[in-house]
Amino acid sequence: MIEPHFVLGIRCRDAVGIVAAVASALASADAFITESSHYGDEETGLFFMRTVFRPTGPRFRNRADFLTALAPAAQRFDMDLALHPRAERMKVLIAVSKPGHCLNHLLHQWQSGELPIDVVGVVSNHADHQRLVEWHGIPFHYLPMTDDKATQEHRLFEVFESTSAELLVLARYMQVLSDDLCQKLAGRCINIHHSFLPSFKGARPYHQAHARGVKVVGATAHYVTRDLDEGPIIEQETERVAHNQSAQSLARIGKDIEAVVLARAVRWHAEHRVMQNGLRTVVFS
Amino acid sequence: MIEPHFVLGIRCRDAVGIVAAVASALASADAFITESSHYGDEETGLFFMRTVFRPTGPRFRNRADFLTALAPAAQRFDMDLALHPRAERMKVLIAVSKPGHCLNHLLHQWQSGELPIDVVGVVSNHADHQRLVEWHGIPFHYLPMTDDKATQEHRLFEVFESTSAELLVLARYMQVLSDDLCQKLAGRCINIHHSFLPSFKGARPYHQAHARGVKVVGATAHYVTRDLDEGPIIEQETERVAHNQSAQSLARIGKDIEAVVLARAVRWHAEHRVMQNGLRTVVFS
Amino acid sequence: MIEPHFVLGIRCRDAVGIVAAVASALASADAFITESSHYGDEETGLFFMRTVFRPTGPRFRNRADFLTALAPAAQRFDMDLALHPRAERMKVLIAVSKPGHCLNHLLHQWQSGELPIDVVGVVSNHADHQRLVEWHGIPFHYLPMTDDKATQEHRLFEVFESTSAELLVLARYMQVLSDDLCQKLAGRCINIHHSFLPSFKGARPYHQAHARGVKVVGATAHYVTRDLDEGPIIEQETERVAHNQSAQSLARIGKDIEAVVLARAVRWHAEHRVMQNGLRTVVFS
Amino acid sequence: MIEPHFVLGIRCRDAVGIVAAVASALASADAFITESSHYGDEETGLFFMRTVFRPTGPRFRNRADFLTALAPAAQRFDMDLALHPRAERMKVLIAVSKPGHCLNHLLHQWQSGELPIDVVGVVSNHADHQRLVEWHGIPFHYLPMTDDKATQEHRLFEVFESTSAELLVLARYMQVLSDDLCQKLAGRCINIHHSFLPSFKGARPYHQAHARGVKVVGATAHYVTRDLDEGPIIEQETERVAHNQSAQSLARIGKDIEAVVLARAVRWHAEHRVMQNGLRTVVFS
Repeated sequence: MIEPHFVLGIRCRDAVGIVAAVASALASADAFITESSHYGDEETGLFFMRTVFRPTGPRFRNRADFLTALAPAAQRFDMDLALHPRAERMKVLIAVSKPGHCLNHLLHQWQSGELPIDVVGVVSNHADHQRLVEWHGIPFHYLPMTDDKATQEHRLFEVFESTSAELLVLARYMQVLSDDLCQKLAGRCINIHHSFLPSFKGARPYHQAHARGVKVVGATAHYVTRDLDEGPIIEQETERVAHNQSAQSLARIGKDIEAVVLARAVRWHAEHRVMQNGLRTVVFS
Repeated sequence: MIEPHFVLGIRCRDAVGIVAAVASALASADAFITESSHYGDEETGLFFMRTVFRPTGPRFRNRADFLTALAPAAQRFDMDLALHPRAERMKVLIAVSKPGHCLNHLLHQWQSGELPIDVVGVVSNHADHQRLVEWHGIPFHYLPMTDDKATQEHRLFEVFESTSAELLVLARYMQVLSDDLCQKLAGRCINIHHSFLPSFKGARPYHQAHARGVKVVGATAHYVTRDLDEGPIIEQETERVAHNQSAQSLARIGKDIEAVVLARAVRWHAEHRVMQNGLRTVVFS
Repeated sequence: MIEPHFVLGIRCRDAVGIVAAVASALASADAFITESSHYGDEETGLFFMRTVFRPTGPRFRNRADFLTALAPAAQRFDMDLALHPRAERMKVLIAVSKPGHCLNHLLHQWQSGELPIDVVGVVSNHADHQRLVEWHGIPFHYLPMTDDKATQEHRLFEVFESTSAELLVLARYMQVLSDDLCQKLAGRCINIHHSFLPSFKGARPYHQAHARGVKVVGATAHYVTRDLDEGPIIEQETERVAHNQSAQSLARIGKDIEAVVLARAVRWHAEHRVMQNGLRTVVFS
Repeated sequence: MIEPHFVLGIRCRDAVGIVAAVASALASADAFITESSHYGDEETGLFFMRTVFRPTGPRFRNRADFLTALAPAAQRFDMDLALHPRAERMKVLIAVSKPGHCLNHLLHQWQSGELPIDVVGVVSNHADHQRLVEWHGIPFHYLPMTDDKATQEHRLFEVFESTSAELLVLARYMQVLSDDLCQKLAGRCINIHHSFLPSFKGARPYHQAHARGVKVVGATAHYVTRDLDEGPIIEQETERVAHNQSAQSLARIGKDIEAVVLARAVRWHAEHRVMQNGLRTVVFS
């Protein structure tokens, strides 16, 4: 039998002895560390750590055992501490509007077993992708904007809660979330913006990019906050373009980057590699 | 004897028959085309063309001969037409402040014979690079900001004119040019901005980028216009960065991109590959 | 009514007057050129041209009209000349084995109307993707390797011919084609190889790449020839990797590049942008 | 007074408790960890660690103090352990032949204070760069190939030893080192190869790349071993090229990549970020 692995995430104020305390607790619990990264931000004075380990001894086997082993260190350094069995797949709800490339890429990676998530549902304000989603055996929630925005959003959040989703992925969902929902989903909602932020915030970024005559376009995956397109960035990627490409061409070229960037961000979040550090993120690769 | 080549650049309103008229004129003059690109912008209705050719016959040999051959076409389509012997090196004046990496890269490429320019001088508001510049045998013009800005700028323009410079390259020159000088040098002044424009205009872009937590930094070479950092973009490039890199690290990483991007832009301009198309550029690669 | 566009492709020995002859023929036929590129290879002495134009006058309307107009130039310079209505979608047959990411990407782009092709069928030596393909309404041809290789390949070619396919795309099809089939499909068969050729030819390139400890992996789309993995390259792309990524991780990372690179190559081929130049290709972007 | 930092590097067989032992030893010595990365290679069973720390207490101040503190852990796990004051600059000898772009870039970065090395000398089999090197105030050793190769190489190694150099950088040095010298400099000699290895080993890689018609070129920095161009790779980078670029153009484009890739590899080596893992390297970024 293959021993399960655990993913430990820690955030606290930086100090002498944190790594020693954590590593010693793990060693005492016969945990074999297979991956580990830490980072102390000198500006914010915060310390971040991600460690993957597996049990090797008979006494410490499950999550509760290791939480107990880590408790003194956690208390001593006042840690935000999270411990996840690595095999546990994060429950993800996807929201999409008409453009389907990000959805399609996520579903393909999920179905191929390459993305460590469970897609618990897809919500959309359009019915376009219902057939695709249901073909994958995933519940499709059609939430049109026919009623007022607040009602529609309320239903979306109901789906999120009723499916026990841990993450909402806005895979080209063309509705701005209310401040209230942003607040509720803080750190649990990832958006793909189809530009290299902070350039070209807001609507029609490829048209803005074409008008400005840039030679490189990009895409940005970020946590959603109340400030539109201002949330902490998780991942970005760029691609060269030329003068003879129209705004439509830029949009087409950009689709590939968007899909890849969003899937990376979802993967890293689901693997507990991403931690928020003020307006920035720490991403342990 | 190797026949000289000529570089023909054309801009006019798009219409049926332009290529035919130009190509026929060249064929009648026994010109062998070695490179050619054209582009019709459907939005602006403008047509752009760059053609490199060499004489093959006895009657048409020099610039004047070909201008005569092209005159009817030029007149018929009301062309902006430029014709340069390819071997003619563009006279370039470089302006620099304290950071020397762009200057160093340009001088190295120039000295290695890789950049088709003549560096006719370097101006600076600091004396730091005098020794390097003079070691290369290039006149160094020290123009400190001790007097008023207008006077200093006047002297800079005097150097530009007295050296018969055709291009002013702002190779990390940390002074904003006046509207008047921007006007005078329209299309003849290239700046390197140390960010991926339009992100992070203005001062200290790497600090802005670090504060925003971007995962990719960039550099932008553009023509200088009165709107700071808003001129037509010639070239951009990007590079990945990570959460553990300080603003200083971003600045260091960015230097390599800045030097490369600026040298490319200068090369392309000097090879007459760049044409302005409103706020954008056409770059024939 | 929107006038149709035509795509003209020319290959011939380079000489004075080719562009003039073609452009004059088009101008006389009242054709408005919207895109054009040419390239003369000084090493091989070959000339390549791609021109997109639309009719503007009453006399020349359809393909036959323009072929007539171009005939004298074609004859004079002994041209390989191809003329396609731009709206005509290329008929494409896709071959795939077990890995489905390239197939999925092609089908998604095709269904979204972004790829100017008609997928006339999918052949596979495995049944894995039958359901996906048929869901898209595309005929699926299951051609297992149960019989001898020659028989299976014969059936594949029968499908190619019976569907009037113009291009066979090997979208991670894990069977080596026979010399005979390579010959028959010369210039009409594109393969994606999951490495940055010429590195890591043959089997399991990501394992080879991992063993060699490269810091960048890649993918290559190329025309299939009798020399395995040696055909003319159409497109390549790369992606950075790190020491802590296993061969499996490289394979996963590489999938995104493979899908994008293959789709680009198919698009460019279908838009008649690619011409063979000995063992190399000219790609008019 | 700013406290000095130390860089600790460890390599040993992987086991439970290594991080705990090291971190505890450092914590007991009042060391504040500012950076740390480790990696356990499941294939080779090796563990690698790089930790940067600074003293915070009165008892442990200098290198010897910390070596003492770490000794029990080092012994227990049979570690290869290296401890360097971060401010200590690595002594580097550069070898170069005619192409000067890598040398120029290294010298510029060094002179700007951006590269944490001391350049103790430059050796060359050509006199071309003597003036540049001496202008920088660096001893230039002209070692022409007039005598037999063994004698010349013997002199090179004498310079290496007499300057107490810790690293030999082959910055486009066009001589193959003997097996014997490779052996002597194992892990202390970095070469830049002007291709994306393992593609295009050996001579004239840009000509090979052009002949093969690749769409991307690259450069590779690697440790030198007896197997030419087969040593462990430290860093690679790539750049797109097009069909209309000659082998000479590829060589020119490649120069920028070569200079950047080599400078990165030298920086990382000098910062003790690179560790050999069989034929591969671990690079802690």
